[in-house]
Amino acid sequence: MTEFTRRNLLTMIGATAGSTAMYHAMTSMGYAAPSDYSGPIKLDGDPQGAKVLVLGAGLAGLTAAYEMRAAGYEVEVLEFREKVGGRCWTLRSGDSFTELGGATQNVDFAEGNYINPGPWRLPHDHHAVLDYCKRLKVPLEPFIQLNYNSYLHKSDAFDGKPQRLRHIKSDYRGHVSELLAKGINQGDLDKLVSSDDREVLIESLRSFGALNEQNEYVKSLETSVYRGYGKQPGGGVGAEPEASDLLDPQQIVQSRLWEYLATHETVDHQAPMFQPVGGMDGIARGFEREVGDLITYNAKVVSLQQDENGVTVTWENTSDGGTQTSTADYCVCTIPFSVLGQIDHNLSGGLADTISTMYYNGSTKWGLEFKRRFWEEDENIYGGISYTDQAISQISYPSTGYLSDGPGVLLGGYTWRGENSYKFNAMQPDERLEWALRQGEKIHPQYREEFKTGVSVAWHKVPWVLGCSGVWENRENYDEAVKIDNRVVCAGEHLSYLPAWQEGAILSSLDAISRLHDKVING
Amino acid sequence: MTEFTRRNLLTMIGATAGSTAMYHAMTSMGYAAPSDYSGPIKLDGDPQGAKVLVLGAGLAGLTAAYEMRAAGYEVEVLEFREKVGGRCWTLRSGDSFTELGGATQNVDFAEGNYINPGPWRLPHDHHAVLDYCKRLKVPLEPFIQLNYNSYLHKSDAFDGKPQRLRHIKSDYRGHVSELLAKGINQGDLDKLVSSDDREVLIESLRSFGALNEQNEYVKSLETSVYRGYGKQPGGGVGAEPEASDLLDPQQIVQSRLWEYLATHETVDHQAPMFQPVGGMDGIARGFEREVGDLITYNAKVVSLQQDENGVTVTWENTSDGGTQTSTADYCVCTIPFSVLGQIDHNLSGGLADTISTMYYNGSTKWGLEFKRRFWEEDENIYGGISYTDQAISQISYPSTGYLSDGPGVLLGGYTWRGENSYKFNAMQPDERLEWALRQGEKIHPQYREEFKTGVSVAWHKVPWVLGCSGVWENRENYDEAVKIDNRVVCAGEHLSYLPAWQEGAILSSLDAISRLHDKVING
Repeated sequence: MTEFTRRNLLTMIGATAGSTAMYHAMTSMGYAAPSDYSGPIKLDGDPQGAKVLVLGAGLAGLTAAYEMRAAGYEVEVLEFREKVGGRCWTLRSGDSFTELGGATQNVDFAEGNYINPGPWRLPHDHHAVLDYCKRLKVPLEPFIQLNYNSYLHKSDAFDGKPQRLRHIKSDYRGHVSELLAKGINQGDLDKLVSSDDREVLIESLRSFGALNEQNEYVKSLETSVYRGYGKQPGGGVGAEPEASDLLDPQQIVQSRLWEYLATHETVDHQAPMFQPVGGMDGIARGFEREVGDLITYNAKVVSLQQDENGVTVTWENTSDGGTQTSTADYCVCTIPFSVLGQIDHNLSGGLADTISTMYYNGSTKWGLEFKRRFWEEDENIYGGISYTDQAISQISYPSTGYLSDGPGVLLGGYTWRGENSYKFNAMQPDERLEWALRQGEKIHPQYREEFKTGVSVAWHKVPWVLGCSGVWENRENYDEAVKIDNRVVCAGEHLSYLPAWQEGAILSSLDAISRLHDKVING
Repeated sequence: MTEFTRRNLLTMIGATAGSTAMYHAMTSMGYAAPSDYSGPIKLDGDPQGAKVLVLGAGLAGLTAAYEMRAAGYEVEVLEFREKVGGRCWTLRSGDSFTELGGATQNVDFAEGNYINPGPWRLPHDHHAVLDYCKRLKVPLEPFIQLNYNSYLHKSDAFDGKPQRLRHIKSDYRGHVSELLAKGINQGDLDKLVSSDDREVLIESLRSFGALNEQNEYVKSLETSVYRGYGKQPGGGVGAEPEASDLLDPQQIVQSRLWEYLATHETVDHQAPMFQPVGGMDGIARGFEREVGDLITYNAKVVSLQQDENGVTVTWENTSDGGTQTSTADYCVCTIPFSVLGQIDHNLSGGLADTISTMYYNGSTKWGLEFKRRFWEEDENIYGGISYTDQAISQISYPSTGYLSDGPGVLLGGYTWRGENSYKFNAMQPDERLEWALRQGEKIHPQYREEFKTGVSVAWHKVPWVLGCSGVWENRENYDEAVKIDNRVVCAGEHLSYLPAWQEGAILSSLDAISRLHDKVING
């Protein structure tokens, strides 16, 4: 009945106060599970020609521009780069990238090959970004996150030999299921399991862990159905399958390779995941088709000032070096705080404090092109991710072009925070590449022989963001930072509970413009 | 060292006896893990104009025709239907299908929509069929088998309300992990777990089961990371996530919904799986591009006779009713035994016994078209399978065209053996459709309102196979049935250890033609 009452209340609010109020009410009541995003935002009411200046044409800025123009605002967008997307970025043949310090990498991939140095996958529960893909007609294809045939690797486990995920997963699960079933069966756990549940719980463990009638996980054709066969079933003569040997359960537990099983089970990584066909920047280009005419490129903001009359932004045209000024009634500022902190502004309070102190995550990603797709041809790995305890952390195989001839590009590493990111930041591109090969060949001995070319992006060295994503050590100033500061509201992944995800950028933007619009309409 | 010795032996065999012998030796030694299929077959040696008659243009027959022509044989293929593929079959708009009993269904799907009534997914470890896709340039895309957002349903569990897979999986795993961790921690399992392993095993269970520091699986943001949130994390104001309620663990165990978790973990269903873009018959058409010129369609074999001089096949042209005869030196017969048993033949021994006695599995599949993709729009289910204990067994959502506008076609049911298949076989198409809707709407209440059109295939009523796949109750006569009987060798999924899989058909064919070729060359 609680739910019903809330629904009725929401209907009432919707009917009497318009959908902006409805949206707020839903948010504040924590309704609208499973997603806070329940379809296109509705910004009702006439803004009467009010002008909004949007700073930054990443997904937060693009969302704001798209929705506010639709709501009747005059919109101007200033973007530092020569293209849309921000971190929603894809590197292809012919692209060039100069990092802080001056090193330039020219991307030399074969036609059609690419790497997404920023966001690279869309969870199926990120409803806002999926809905924008639908509305903007950005075709999606599955991103393979979990591949049972990929490798798990720890340098000091199993003599440094990578293990197939399916072996670790099946054997670990079988082993713990056997332990629990035996414990229950021997009456060791009578305090914890009621006698009513005992039999069916053991039966479930036999299913879950592939245990035999004696509740054991043993070498057999039955366990091979899960972990793979020693010899696969075939056709005709001599086609009978043979069971595979199990790994030593103690070695599995001590190896800590089980650490790599959890990620795939988190809601943001659960199958299915998606990616735009042809590269992540397909989303940016989808927005560009709608609002490209509003954007001024190569515009480096140097000052953001507001007073009782409006907002004034001074910017340099990085093409010709000239300085210009744009004014508006309001501003949606999606410039990362790492950069905004270096810009002259008169924002105030907790927002200003956060801008000046927020730490940005470092992260390094590599795109490596190889002559052929040896991971498919030699190792039957089609998409998915191998994990390692080396600094590169992971190798991800392309979720597209399966079974095609080479060359192919894989993600040669993806570091996340911490010491390793600093080390890679300090290196020149060539050195970073060498490390990716040196560590990658521990997983794939074919690496050196098959390598063609590569590119890496160390996010602390990316001039227009100086990091990968905003980090809240605690969220002490969060409520202040997301508030509208007079005529300016900030938005982006850094002002969300989904940092580093495009969904966070979009949801932050939708919330910001919804409140800004409410202020414009209702004062 | 064992491996090395075997390798050397194989090299020796390969060098001295040709690759056919090599292939046999590998098979008989159980080498070549992880796959018995290690690349294109090589049939060395000149067959000197020998002619082979291939009966049936399903995947087994097409493989035989393709490889034997390449090896220098004169090849003639007789196919009962008007097209290639056999059970590798896709129904699209404009197709018509008449089942035994005379009922005709005209497929009325929208342009581009289709259903695969036979095989519908390719495991990533089915190396032969994947390799043929590569060689025949059949583009593949991921088939989503496991979708954490799909439903699990038992009519008498949770008041008949479908449960999201992620909730059942996370909560079940958390619950059993908690039980085991507590049992170990309380010393209940000291006999089973060495003191060296205890701590790290408990730590692994905390990771595996999302347990807290007290080894409990409780409502929290930490468990919501796995099972999904009550309120999802958002952006801006009021964006803090809220934890979701757990299901009652006893109810989960007693519901037996855990039964539906195992399939996805079997090696033939582990992620990633694939499907040909545009329909399974893309594989058949790939073969057709190569060997279409060898095939006579609408050829109903009525007699297969062999003697010391050759093979004589009598067949009816079903277009004009005329009777014709084809002769050859050898025959690869891929006609399903369910049909071959009704054809006049002089095959002998255990093969003849098997032909006359083999039982063929029934199975029914439905393709249902709906006005819109409500499973995506309303329920955020993109591909994957919902399972139910109702007769339809499962509903599978299309692994293609994600986020597109309707109409969309899903698999409305897939029965497998047993009583339900008989019941559906006995029905007329309209009645089968009604049952699919009646049961499907228990999972998706939108069914009736959104339904447009549908088609169903009850495999016992498919004239050219009379079942879905050959069943070996035991494999008593298997060794006899796969033997070359003088000048005839039989092949197909029914003569493999991978029944009902296309991989079984191909591997059976490769093995059969390899032995036949060996006989032709070496006598």
